[in-house]
Amino acid sequence: MDSVLVVGSVAYDSVETPEAKVEDALGGSAIYFSAAASLFVPVKVVAIVGDDFNPEDVDYLKSKRVDFKGMQQVPGKTFRWGGRYARDMNHRETLYTHLNVFEKFDPDIPAEYRDTPFLFLANIQPELQQCVLEQMKRPKFTMLDTMNFWIEGRYEALLKTITRVDGIVINEEEALDLVHETNLIRAMKKITRLGPKVIIVKKGEHGAILSVNNSYFFAPAYPVENVVDPTGAGDSFAGGFMGYLATAGEISERHLRKAVIYGSAVASFCVAGFSISRLKQLTRKEIDERVEDLRRLVVF
Amino acid sequence: MDSVLVVGSVAYDSVETPEAKVEDALGGSAIYFSAAASLFVPVKVVAIVGDDFNPEDVDYLKSKRVDFKGMQQVPGKTFRWGGRYARDMNHRETLYTHLNVFEKFDPDIPAEYRDTPFLFLANIQPELQQCVLEQMKRPKFTMLDTMNFWIEGRYEALLKTITRVDGIVINEEEALDLVHETNLIRAMKKITRLGPKVIIVKKGEHGAILSVNNSYFFAPAYPVENVVDPTGAGDSFAGGFMGYLATAGEISERHLRKAVIYGSAVASFCVAGFSISRLKQLTRKEIDERVEDLRRLVVF
Repeated sequence: MDSVLVVGSVAYDSVETPEAKVEDALGGSAIYFSAAASLFVPVKVVAIVGDDFNPEDVDYLKSKRVDFKGMQQVPGKTFRWGGRYARDMNHRETLYTHLNVFEKFDPDIPAEYRDTPFLFLANIQPELQQCVLEQMKRPKFTMLDTMNFWIEGRYEALLKTITRVDGIVINEEEALDLVHETNLIRAMKKITRLGPKVIIVKKGEHGAILSVNNSYFFAPAYPVENVVDPTGAGDSFAGGFMGYLATAGEISERHLRKAVIYGSAVASFCVAGFSISRLKQLTRKEIDERVEDLRRLVVF
Repeated sequence: MDSVLVVGSVAYDSVETPEAKVEDALGGSAIYFSAAASLFVPVKVVAIVGDDFNPEDVDYLKSKRVDFKGMQQVPGKTFRWGGRYARDMNHRETLYTHLNVFEKFDPDIPAEYRDTPFLFLANIQPELQQCVLEQMKRPKFTMLDTMNFWIEGRYEALLKTITRVDGIVINEEEALDLVHETNLIRAMKKITRLGPKVIIVKKGEHGAILSVNNSYFFAPAYPVENVVDPTGAGDSFAGGFMGYLATAGEISERHLRKAVIYGSAVASFCVAGFSISRLKQLTRKEIDERVEDLRRLVVF
């Protein structure tokens, strides 16, 4: 079975919603991604944590085929993020971002990870994403995530990295900003011209759009009535997407569409609990049922 | 063949977009609705215009089975609206709203219109919508549109009117405001409890959600690369929806879903030209092809 490598952050998050509050909960892109992808295939993690990191916090993930040999532990504090969600759960305010040891992150891919067929470059500095790509041996499918911070601050490096991946997953506003567009379809065409064949634009509660060589697919978001914590929705979406794709055998448009639906299904569970609490309880049967629910949402 | 009655506005619109500008173009909810619905079934219009209205402006619609016997012409000026769209075409600024004779609108339904089986109450004062309902003889399906102005200013009257219709079509923000909610799914449940079995929430480029007795359907918006003028998208959506439904024979969830897709298809053509210019050129064959394009957008 193909496995997936993720390079990203491991963090302790403090999250406030109108209903509740958690302190120092396990978070970070690599955590959400691997909690989701490991529901499908074995996952390898490259990340960095400080000496305050409690290894037991990832015991559960280790028991689920997530390999943390690529996670360096160094002196200093682990990445910490604090955020507060508005009543509608669609808007959040970042209270603080303490990069701590993450600032020194220099991803060194262990030799036994370098031939992993599926690679997800979570939202980190574009130069680091590129440095990971250079260490890999002919992966089957590579995808990156990015954010406004890099679009604004490391634009040239980001464009260069984008030309070297097969896919990009990005939110709507970032997609428009990336190519200075006001229309999403035109933006996706422009991004395709940069290189990636596969573009996924995440639109939160409005679902996601997949473009494969300028052919479009609209995936609905599952209608979640009680969102507990939206943190990690994007990374768990990417994890469900890459995880499913790694089981599919081939990278065809049909499988890419199904992979987006699996991503949407997993993300809809992620937001139903703080941190990865709901993902921990999740079964493949529940995911498959939600995929069928998503199908019923769009059939006419 | 079942026909549709629309009660709404006829206006002269002046619209500015980043690319172009039109002055005194034919507009108003009843015009956009009937241009769309008449692609499916005969339409009857109840509206009011001033003595400056040029009857030739609706010659085209008359040739397309739209009956204007219910349009009163009275002394004074016709409703005029001016708006300017932002570069992204999703935001607009109202430059002026001159209600003129529309302020005196007191819809008197001609005797021969009162047994029309399908009734669309476009966005007018809730008391007038109710007064129309009282004049009708057992319609098969009634639907209303409304807006923030009435939610804020005529709340009790609006709620009372909503209890008396089969369906409501409303945009996302208005749906939340109507029942003081922050989550759209909870909002739709609350609206269902007010009475209407059919709720359609329009989300512009994100498509539309249909709720039939708390069962949901997500309709995509066709990806339009070059939006010329978004004015009338909502009313042409409603026209396509009601028009298709009137041809369907029965009001089942299956037909309601298809009707939403037909509404989405027609609206995607409407925005490709100023006023009703694109709808004038539109053929049933083009609509059916777009419906199939919409199906391909969501199949997995």
